[in-house]
Amino acid sequence: MRLAGSNRDATWTRIRSAGVELLFKRGYEAMNTRQLAEAAGLKPGSLYYYFASKEEFLHRLLVDLLQEIVDDLEENLEGLEDVDDRLDAFVRVLVKWHVQRREETFIASIEVRALSHDRHQEYMALRDRFDVTLAQIVHDGIEQGRYKIKHESIARNAILSALTAISGWYDPKGPLGLDDLADDFVTLSRRMVGSKRRR
Amino acid sequence: MRLAGSNRDATWTRIRSAGVELLFKRGYEAMNTRQLAEAAGLKPGSLYYYFASKEEFLHRLLVDLLQEIVDDLEENLEGLEDVDDRLDAFVRVLVKWHVQRREETFIASIEVRALSHDRHQEYMALRDRFDVTLAQIVHDGIEQGRYKIKHESIARNAILSALTAISGWYDPKGPLGLDDLADDFVTLSRRMVGSKRRR
Repeated sequence: MRLAGSNRDATWTRIRSAGVELLFKRGYEAMNTRQLAEAAGLKPGSLYYYFASKEEFLHRLLVDLLQEIVDDLEENLEGLEDVDDRLDAFVRVLVKWHVQRREETFIASIEVRALSHDRHQEYMALRDRFDVTLAQIVHDGIEQGRYKIKHESIARNAILSALTAISGWYDPKGPLGLDDLADDFVTLSRRMVGSKRRR
Repeated sequence: MRLAGSNRDATWTRIRSAGVELLFKRGYEAMNTRQLAEAAGLKPGSLYYYFASKEEFLHRLLVDLLQEIVDDLEENLEGLEDVDDRLDAFVRVLVKWHVQRREETFIASIEVRALSHDRHQEYMALRDRFDVTLAQIVHDGIEQGRYKIKHESIARNAILSALTAISGWYDPKGPLGLDDLADDFVTLSRRMVGSKRRR
């Protein structure tokens, strides 16, 4: 991997966090690379060392974020065999990312449409891994007689969309912390799949 | 109410449906009023009889839609006393709108950020009625010992976001119909609130 733009590159880190703030506050369409350079304390021309266009920047941001979440999810599911344990871990990882990286996950949910066709496809292929992972858990739970669901895809979409929507409504200045959300979403998800292990 | 722009005005209806298609396919930022006039078979200048700007058009579209949903919800809840009956009706109305008016509800979820501050406030005040209605149902259910929920706001946001996300994933060409979604979402919502009336 080239050094320019690797996550260990301090300038890239600065551009990245300035970009997240601009995207979160103004949205992709209203943002331009001049503002981005200014916010990162750089000359406009120097951004092209890191990416060729605003869209390449967005793509990089979203794919890096998604890759981090996918890696974290796989690490947390590793070695877990029981479907309820797997469901719990799945839910806790997604809640954590949507609370702790609220601005970035919110940007991802809104701005993914701005990506070009090929980049959008690449992003969605990576994103499908969440759905495939959850599908396997739900499917196994039903096979083992542990879960009771009529249409798997409806339950799966309901769980996944409730989780990814957290970054849209969660207020970090409010009374609820990460543990409250993680515990409650574990309970809600177990109930949704009809697990016997309810709390 | 003025006739120009009333929902009985056939030209407005044509502008409206052309606008929904453009907004759904291209997004608000990429759309302009010239394309809108063309798609509706009108001269650009004639749009100003209906609205002064692209943003006014979006606002009108979103507020009209929301008002229709709010009216339908109130009509469907009228006379229902039992909390489970009220929850079922709430869920069925929201599923119906997000399936049958999928494109418009999707636009609303994505483009509401494009509204100016005052218009955004007005929209959100109307949108809060869903949350207040659901809050009352959930609260009554807990008071009556029928529902079991740790943090009401988490359950409420989870239910509401799962419902409003339907327009983002539902495929009208797929195997699932409105009844499948409505029935399953009733079951999922009852389970989420911990209702005894589970199916």
